[in-house]
Amino acid sequence: MSQKTSLDLGPLPELIGYVLRRAQLVVFQDFFQAFAPFDISPAQFSVLTVIERNPGLTQSQVAAALGIKRTNFVGLLDELERRALAERRQAARDRRSYALYLTAEGAALMRKLKPVLKAHESRMIARLGEAGRDRLVELLHAIVDRPSQNGARLKEAKVSRPPRPGSVAT
Amino acid sequence: MSQKTSLDLGPLPELIGYVLRRAQLVVFQDFFQAFAPFDISPAQFSVLTVIERNPGLTQSQVAAALGIKRTNFVGLLDELERRALAERRQAARDRRSYALYLTAEGAALMRKLKPVLKAHESRMIARLGEAGRDRLVELLHAIVDRPSQNGARLKEAKVSRPPRPGSVAT
Repeated sequence: MSQKTSLDLGPLPELIGYVLRRAQLVVFQDFFQAFAPFDISPAQFSVLTVIERNPGLTQSQVAAALGIKRTNFVGLLDELERRALAERRQAARDRRSYALYLTAEGAALMRKLKPVLKAHESRMIARLGEAGRDRLVELLHAIVDRPSQNGARLKEAKVSRPPRPGSVAT
Repeated sequence: MSQKTSLDLGPLPELIGYVLRRAQLVVFQDFFQAFAPFDISPAQFSVLTVIERNPGLTQSQVAAALGIKRTNFVGLLDELERRALAERRQAARDRRSYALYLTAEGAALMRKLKPVLKAHESRMIARLGEAGRDRLVELLHAIVDRPSQNGARLKEAKVSRPPRPGSVAT
């Protein structure tokens, strides 16, 4: 007897949260397998991406941009620093806070990960089609971008850039 | 300066996995808040739903239907049993395995949760529109239902039901 075809899941398969979670686990599973040779998790990849694109940000800024809780973020960053992929440097303007940078090793890793990410994303798009992917991303943004809580839509996050800090990025 | 509008997130806002995860966290956050008075998590709600709809299943069947790892499932069920919402009974046909049932208290709780679930889902649909919700669920199923790995589509899971076990469901 196939368990998958004989169970009554009630309202679950139509519930946004339930299907979202199932889909997220499938996509992350593919990501984990693809990135296993580099021992990089989705969260680590996000952090490295934001640091790469915005060198010199504080920990709170990166954590806020990614919606990661401060305590979880500290652990994530400790691990990236231990592996010499990212580093904290004392911020010039505020000696109590740290500015984040990729190391040369971290930057090199990010270059190596580019085709891995592309292949992962292509496998996901293969299940949806290009138009399906576009629509899915649009619908997900409609959930994430909460006009009542912040006026800015996530897609607008790319429009402007912060002033570069004085120090040169690695 | 608004951090949200000034950061360059690079490819992240277009990556299926990243946006899925952000959306899933938003939906779960709403769920957690709505269900907090009942102290019920999304995973607990899924387990209670499957047991309610399919009384007498084994732990492995419920865990497999929901894609929950065996070890995590045992902890989940221990907690539901400790709170007297669900119970394990020794299976009639196989004395080594346990069949799962809701208690009367568990069934009563599920009735109370119905309007809470409906209100939660309505808030999510408000962000997408009915048509958007339908399309989102369809696209998410396209990710989850992996024809290469199992022939059955998740939507077909409701077609047939397992034979009821001999014992009467609570």
